[in-house]
Amino acid sequence: MSVNKPLDAVSEPGLRVTVGVDFGTLSGRAVVVSVADGAQLGEAVHEYRYGAVEHTLPATGEQLPPDWALQVPDDWRDVLRYAVPKALELAGVTPDQVVGIGTDFTACTVLPTTADGKPLCEVPGYEGRPHAYPKLWKHHSAQAQADRINALAAERGESWLPRYGGKISSEWQYAKALQLLEEDPELYRAAERWIEAADWIVWELTGAENRNTCTAGYKGIRQDGQWPSREYLAALNPEFADFTGKLEFPLSPLGGKAGGLSVRAAAWTGLNEGIPVSVGNVDAHVTNAAARALEPGHMLAIMGTSTCHIMNSDRLAEVPGMCGVVDGGVVPGLWGYEAGQSGVGDIFAWAVRTALPEDYAREARERGISGHQLLTEKAARQAVGAHGLVALDWHSGNRSVLVDHHLSGLIVGLTLDTRPEEIYRALLEATAFGTRTIVEAFEQSGVPVTEFTVAGGLPKNAFLMQIYSDVLRRPVNVIGSEQGGALGSAIHAAVAAGVYPDIQAASAAMGSIRRAVYTPDGERADAYDALYAEYRELHDHFGRGGSDAMHRLRALRDRGRGQG
Amino acid sequence: MSVNKPLDAVSEPGLRVTVGVDFGTLSGRAVVVSVADGAQLGEAVHEYRYGAVEHTLPATGEQLPPDWALQVPDDWRDVLRYAVPKALELAGVTPDQVVGIGTDFTACTVLPTTADGKPLCEVPGYEGRPHAYPKLWKHHSAQAQADRINALAAERGESWLPRYGGKISSEWQYAKALQLLEEDPELYRAAERWIEAADWIVWELTGAENRNTCTAGYKGIRQDGQWPSREYLAALNPEFADFTGKLEFPLSPLGGKAGGLSVRAAAWTGLNEGIPVSVGNVDAHVTNAAARALEPGHMLAIMGTSTCHIMNSDRLAEVPGMCGVVDGGVVPGLWGYEAGQSGVGDIFAWAVRTALPEDYAREARERGISGHQLLTEKAARQAVGAHGLVALDWHSGNRSVLVDHHLSGLIVGLTLDTRPEEIYRALLEATAFGTRTIVEAFEQSGVPVTEFTVAGGLPKNAFLMQIYSDVLRRPVNVIGSEQGGALGSAIHAAVAAGVYPDIQAASAAMGSIRRAVYTPDGERADAYDALYAEYRELHDHFGRGGSDAMHRLRALRDRGRGQG
Repeated sequence: MSVNKPLDAVSEPGLRVTVGVDFGTLSGRAVVVSVADGAQLGEAVHEYRYGAVEHTLPATGEQLPPDWALQVPDDWRDVLRYAVPKALELAGVTPDQVVGIGTDFTACTVLPTTADGKPLCEVPGYEGRPHAYPKLWKHHSAQAQADRINALAAERGESWLPRYGGKISSEWQYAKALQLLEEDPELYRAAERWIEAADWIVWELTGAENRNTCTAGYKGIRQDGQWPSREYLAALNPEFADFTGKLEFPLSPLGGKAGGLSVRAAAWTGLNEGIPVSVGNVDAHVTNAAARALEPGHMLAIMGTSTCHIMNSDRLAEVPGMCGVVDGGVVPGLWGYEAGQSGVGDIFAWAVRTALPEDYAREARERGISGHQLLTEKAARQAVGAHGLVALDWHSGNRSVLVDHHLSGLIVGLTLDTRPEEIYRALLEATAFGTRTIVEAFEQSGVPVTEFTVAGGLPKNAFLMQIYSDVLRRPVNVIGSEQGGALGSAIHAAVAAGVYPDIQAASAAMGSIRRAVYTPDGERADAYDALYAEYRELHDHFGRGGSDAMHRLRALRDRGRGQG
Repeated sequence: MSVNKPLDAVSEPGLRVTVGVDFGTLSGRAVVVSVADGAQLGEAVHEYRYGAVEHTLPATGEQLPPDWALQVPDDWRDVLRYAVPKALELAGVTPDQVVGIGTDFTACTVLPTTADGKPLCEVPGYEGRPHAYPKLWKHHSAQAQADRINALAAERGESWLPRYGGKISSEWQYAKALQLLEEDPELYRAAERWIEAADWIVWELTGAENRNTCTAGYKGIRQDGQWPSREYLAALNPEFADFTGKLEFPLSPLGGKAGGLSVRAAAWTGLNEGIPVSVGNVDAHVTNAAARALEPGHMLAIMGTSTCHIMNSDRLAEVPGMCGVVDGGVVPGLWGYEAGQSGVGDIFAWAVRTALPEDYAREARERGISGHQLLTEKAARQAVGAHGLVALDWHSGNRSVLVDHHLSGLIVGLTLDTRPEEIYRALLEATAFGTRTIVEAFEQSGVPVTEFTVAGGLPKNAFLMQIYSDVLRRPVNVIGSEQGGALGSAIHAAVAAGVYPDIQAASAAMGSIRRAVYTPDGERADAYDALYAEYRELHDHFGRGGSDAMHRLRALRDRGRGQG
C-alpha cells in the first residue's frame, strides 16, 4: 500500500463500477463502466419482444388506429432481467464491485398506472384497452389535442408557452393524456398516476415513486415550480382540470439518488439489494455527461435518424422553435436547452432507398461498402455548390426552429445531368444548414453557442462531419464513446452513489471527447454561405408563410389516400 | 375500264405514291406512301456517319468548344443515296409510280454556302474551320449573341419581338450568324448564302435555290414581308448590317413545288428526273398534316425528349412565351403558332436513370418490361394527389411560356415514405401541367384551342396520355401514324405533285387521327386542378421573379465546376 497515493475516488484501489441502462425504442442496452475513468468493461443489448406496437394490440390482435405507437412494460423489465446480468458477466465483475445503477429512457414515453405504479395494461380487465398501454414517444395520434393545447395557450397568453418555442408537441404528456381522457374516460379515471417511463423504471428499481426535473420540465410543462393552471386545463376539458394531480410529486434533481435497489430488482439484475439508483433521465440528456459537454454554451448534437441538440446555459431566454428550456434540465443549477431536427439519418436512408440505381448498388456490393459509403465517396469528389442543388431537410417535418410536422422535403436545381450522389450530398448539406439555423436561433436569442460536439451514429461519416464544420464555420468535436446514452447513465449512477460530488465532476472523469476533430476550411465555408442563403430563403418561404404549399400538398395527399 | 368510276385523284386506277424524307438529328428516314390513302408501303432509316458533331471536328480532330453542335452535309445526302432507294425497294414500287418527293428537317439547322449552294465546309481550305459547318439546332454556344439580340430588340421596341413571345432563341439564324461573324469574320464574308438545311436539301434535290415561309418566319424573323431592319442589325455589329442579303430570296408557300428532281438527285435516289420536289419544311410542322391537325384551334403536341406544340389559327395574337407565330407557317392562309417544352421524355429518362432502385430494375428485367413501364404501372395504382408531390418540369429549362433555359427542376412534398414511382408520376404530371400552362396562355391571349392531338414517341404511354386528358380536361386525340414527319413530307409532296389542291385536302386523304382516345374523368380532373394550382404557384414564384434562386444556383454550379 502506497501512502502517497491520494485517496480520491478515481485512484482508490480495487475496480469499482456502475451500470448504465439505456432504454431505446426497439431494445435496451446495459453497460458496465469503471467509475475511475469511464472505461466500458461489458455491454449487452436486449431486443424487446414487442418493441414499438404500431399495428395490432398484442393481447387481442385488435387493429390500432393510424399514428398509434405503444410499448409493453414487460419489455423494459426484460432489459433488467437479461441485459444487465449479461453485461456484468461480460465485464467480469462481481456484484460487490457495482456501486450504483442509472437509467435513461426515450421521452416522452408515458403511461397510466395505479397509485402503486402498476401499469393499467397489467390490471386484469384492461389488457385489451389500447389506452391502458404506455404511449411511445412517437405516438402521433394526439395532434388534434395538441392543436387545442397550443391554440388555447396562445389565446390565454400562458407564460410557459414561450419556454417551448411557442409549441407544445403532440408527443408530450398533456396531449397524450387529453387523448386518453377523451377517448377512454373510464381509463383516465382509473389512472391514478400518469408517469414518464423514465420515472416508472426507477419506481420499478427502487419500489418507490420518484420524479425527475428533466421530464417534468420538458414533457410535463413544469416551469418556475408550477404546472399549467387548473383554469387553463379546465378550459381544455372540464374533466381535465385536475390532471396535474396525476403528476404531482416532489421533483428530484438529476444525478441524485432516487433510492436503493429493491429486493425484486436485485433479483432481476443480479445486483446487490440497496445499491443507489439514480434519478430517472432522458437518453439525449444523459449523453452530455458522456461527451463532457456540460459547460454553458457547449452544444451537443446527438445525430442518428433524427438529431437532438442539448445545451446548458447560465441564461434564460426564449429561443424561437426550441423544444424547451428547463431549470436543471440537464444538470442542477443551469438552464438546459433542447432543440431538434426531426429527420437526419432517416433522410439519408431515404435517399439510398430511392436514388441508388442498380449500377451503383452493384458497385457498392462488389467493393463491400454500403450505399451510403459509395454515395458519400462520389459526392465528396465535387467542389462545394457544383451540383447546383439545394434541399430542405423536412422529409419528416421540421422540429426546430419551425415546429411544424406537416412540412415536407424539397429539392431544387435539378437538371438532366443531376446524379444520385449530388442529390445525396444536397441532403447531407441540408441537415447541416438545418443545424446552422438552430445554432443561429440560439445566438440571436442571446444564448451563445461556444462549442459544438457530435454524438450518435452519424459522426462516423467523416465527409458529413466536415460539411458540418464548414457550414457552421466551427470546429466539430466528437464524443469518445459510441454508447453515449448508457455511459451517461453510468455517470449519473456514479454521482448518485456519491463517488463524485456532481455530474460535472463525474463527466470530467468518466466522459470523453475528441476536440476539433474537424475544422472549417475558409474557402469551402464561403461557398457554403452562398448555398445556406438559398436554404434560408426556401426555409422562410415554405416554412414561414410565404407559401403554404406544403400543407396543401399534405392535405391533398391525405385526401388521395382516403385519410383526409 | 369502268366508265362509272370517278376520275378523281384518289380513285384513279394504278397505285401512285410519294416519297417523304425526314431528316433528324442522328438519322434520316424515308417512307413511300400511297397518295390515295396515306398507306405506308415502305420505310428505311439511314443512320448518319457523323451525326451530331459535338466534341471534335471530323476533318482535323480539333476539339470543339463547349455547347457546340455541328452536322456534316454529306450525312444528309447519304439519306437520299441509301434510305430512299431502300424504301422504294421495300415498298415494291417502280420509279414511274412515284409522283413526287418531299422533305422535312430539324430546325433551326443552318449553314453557310457559296452563291451556288456549296457548303463552305466542302470548299477546299475551309474543311478545318468549325464555323464552315452546318450548325445543328442544338448548337448552344451563341447565347451571348442571343442575349444582345434580345436586349437590343427590346430596347428599340422592335415590332417583331412579340411575335416570338418576347425572346429570340440562341438556336435561331441570327444568333448563329452573328457568332460566325464575330468568331470567324473571314468565313462570314465567304458565306454568300446563309440557309436553313430544310431549304438546302431542296436545293440539292432540284439544283436551284428555294426558300420556304416556315423557317423564314420562325427562324429567320421574317414578319409582314420584312426582315429586321438594317439599322437594328448594324447596331448589333456594323458588319452585320447587310446580313439579310444572305437570306433574301422569294419565299415559296408550304406544299408548293420547289422544282423538278435534278439529274444528280435522280441518280442518288433512283427516282425519275423531273418529278416534283415540294418546298422545304420543318419536322414538327409537317406532322400536323400527317395528324389531320390543320384546322384553326387544333393543337398538335409532338412529344418526345421534348415537346413541340404546333397550331393554326385564323387570328394573329401575341401569346406570351410562344416560340413564334408566322403567316403561312404551317399552311398558306393561316397563322401558324409554335410553342414548346424543352424537357419532357428526357426528364422521364432522368428519373429512370436516377431513381430506379436495384430491386425495381430487377423486377422490370425479370418481367421483360422497361423501367418506364414498371414505374408507370406502379404509379398508376395511386389516386390523384396521393403522393403529395408537385414538381416543376424544368430540368432542361423552360421554353414556353417562360423562355428561360437557366431554370431548373424542383420537387416538393417529399417525405420518408415517398417512393420512386411517386417521383416518376409527379414528373409525368409536371409535364402535363406545363402543357396546360401553354394551352391557357393561348386561350388567354385570344387564340382558342379547340382540339388537342398528340404525336411522337410518348403517346404509347397510355397512363401518361390519360394524365394529359385529365389535366387538360379535354379529349386527347392520337395521330394514326408512328412516322408523322416522313408521312407529313409525303403529304406535302402529293400537294406539290398536284394530286391534291392543298395541304388540307391531302391531309384529309392521307393523314390519320384517332379521336378522343382518352377522355377526362371529372373526379380526377378536379383533383388535378388542385395540384395544378400548386404547380402554377411554384411556376410563378421561381419563374417570374418571386425568387431568383434557380439562377443563383446555376451560377454557383458553374463556379463550382470552374465554368463560372
